[in-house]
Amino acid sequence: MTAAPSTAPPTAAQVLHRCRDLVRPELERAVARLHPWVGEMAAYSFGWCEVGGAPATAPGGKGVRQALAVLGAEAVGGPARAGTTAAVAVELVHAFSLLHDDIMDGDPTRRGRPTAWRAYGTGPAVLAGDALFALAVETIAEAPAGAPGLRLLSTALGDLVRGQADDLQFADRPWLGPDRVRPEAYRALAEHKTGALLGCAAALGAALGGAPPTTVAALDRAGRELGIAFQIVDDVLGVWGDPAVTGKPVHNDLRARKKTYPVLVALDTPVAGRLAGLLDSGERPEAAAALIEEAGGRSAALREARRRIAAARSALAAVPLDAGTERELGALLEFLVGRQL
Amino acid sequence: MTAAPSTAPPTAAQVLHRCRDLVRPELERAVARLHPWVGEMAAYSFGWCEVGGAPATAPGGKGVRQALAVLGAEAVGGPARAGTTAAVAVELVHAFSLLHDDIMDGDPTRRGRPTAWRAYGTGPAVLAGDALFALAVETIAEAPAGAPGLRLLSTALGDLVRGQADDLQFADRPWLGPDRVRPEAYRALAEHKTGALLGCAAALGAALGGAPPTTVAALDRAGRELGIAFQIVDDVLGVWGDPAVTGKPVHNDLRARKKTYPVLVALDTPVAGRLAGLLDSGERPEAAAALIEEAGGRSAALREARRRIAAARSALAAVPLDAGTERELGALLEFLVGRQL
Repeated sequence: MTAAPSTAPPTAAQVLHRCRDLVRPELERAVARLHPWVGEMAAYSFGWCEVGGAPATAPGGKGVRQALAVLGAEAVGGPARAGTTAAVAVELVHAFSLLHDDIMDGDPTRRGRPTAWRAYGTGPAVLAGDALFALAVETIAEAPAGAPGLRLLSTALGDLVRGQADDLQFADRPWLGPDRVRPEAYRALAEHKTGALLGCAAALGAALGGAPPTTVAALDRAGRELGIAFQIVDDVLGVWGDPAVTGKPVHNDLRARKKTYPVLVALDTPVAGRLAGLLDSGERPEAAAALIEEAGGRSAALREARRRIAAARSALAAVPLDAGTERELGALLEFLVGRQL
Repeated sequence: MTAAPSTAPPTAAQVLHRCRDLVRPELERAVARLHPWVGEMAAYSFGWCEVGGAPATAPGGKGVRQALAVLGAEAVGGPARAGTTAAVAVELVHAFSLLHDDIMDGDPTRRGRPTAWRAYGTGPAVLAGDALFALAVETIAEAPAGAPGLRLLSTALGDLVRGQADDLQFADRPWLGPDRVRPEAYRALAEHKTGALLGCAAALGAALGGAPPTTVAALDRAGRELGIAFQIVDDVLGVWGDPAVTGKPVHNDLRARKKTYPVLVALDTPVAGRLAGLLDSGERPEAAAALIEEAGGRSAALREARRRIAAARSALAAVPLDAGTERELGALLEFLVGRQL
């Protein structure tokens, strides 16, 4: 009397959950290879332990990168090992970049806990990031047929650093005049900082799974487009999002004077002077939000995000992928950005 | 009326100079690929420019790693390109590790100039290190037949991080008792922190030059032994070296309470209690130096260094290498450690 097999496609939550369960043992095995002290910092940053090593179940990330890596391998019929190896590498790179970015940005908390540099000190957190970076490279260097994978990983690493450099520098650029940040430059930043590793995840899974270069490139492209869309949607939520959903105060990004996509679009219109004055004053963020919306910043952002998601979908449609996996990838896309568009 | 060709073997200074001239254009080309802001920090750390970008000719390092990479390729008859590519990768890794180590150690100056984190800030210096690391990986990932090279590089990266972790932790360990640092643990640290990248340099040059695995492994071993010897000789100079030669005050490492090899050997003898008292007081470093010498710390250190150099030479002798290059490698060994032994 077993239930008939369900024909409903899996939800994004199910996909993320399944992939996390697949990857977690491999990720733990990799982290166990680190120097014990560095390994504890790594485990802390994954939410697996407290300072001192006591077990914890702090919330980790959603696990989008590891899911993309697993799905990338499955989409091309690669062995399970290909997906988990790629997933471990990209999760290590992601953890490295969070550790170092939190130092550079001076962020005191992440996911409700002190950041690693606050918990362990700046020097040790620099070291832990370096160790995760080195371990990611080692993971791929040891994988069979790792050479094309290493090129994908090293390109993503270079892009991540480039994106972070732009991000740090953009904060000091003016709202107005020839030195202002243009929306195009911001899209390049979003691709480097967010898209490169999402693309690398899916592409690395496929590459280690034995996919031909055109399929690898299509998955890379899809992940990059997804990253840009995700960043822009995040920007829209940072201004107009419901605090109950985003977990941040309303208009948070305006108060923080962040150079986000809707703001940069509005600064390219005749309201620029008025908007810059409001942003500089740091007061009346609701008036700034209304002005950005009036200037078309919000709708332009949503339009751009939709365009990027369409580009991601058409990159996926252009290459042969396992149909079931393609549906799971679609569920992820919808979960990450679709609901807001 | 040209002079007859000299038959004298080249001096170490000539070898280092020749290799620096070969590598410099390739290293500049690699650094030019970085984000401009990050590239300036990299150029500053190489001594090529001042803060702001004005050209400078600040002293760089001796260039031992790049020379070993070039000689590694030449020793196996590899193309010049193999040596310079390997040299660029190891110099980038070396620069990365100096940048981050200076942050972790809080060192304010290096080679007579403010360290990068003092000149540009901690966050930017973290980023510049990350960028150099990523560029090193990219350099090898793009090289033909880079897969074995990448395994060498990733092993060295892992060892470097492990050595730095031990180094930071050893500072907090006691002089006496079961938790003290043993000489064996210190030798492992020296191999990781100094030997791994010297070994990687020579081995990477040979690997990219098409050498068989036994030759690659022998060059790796020789570089690692050289690194341990070099570190121990440096420790001896840090206690008994002539300030006019070392550029540091006499007994400098004793005053700084450094856990160096001669000290750790002496702490394994009956003078341990007396020595710990002197070291903790920070006074009368000349008495501590005399006590270490009396306990055999100095002679044990020199003996260990000699043993390591002999091991390096026999690793080289066991594999077929170009005779002229082997002489150049010998000149380097002699220059780096032989004069003190």
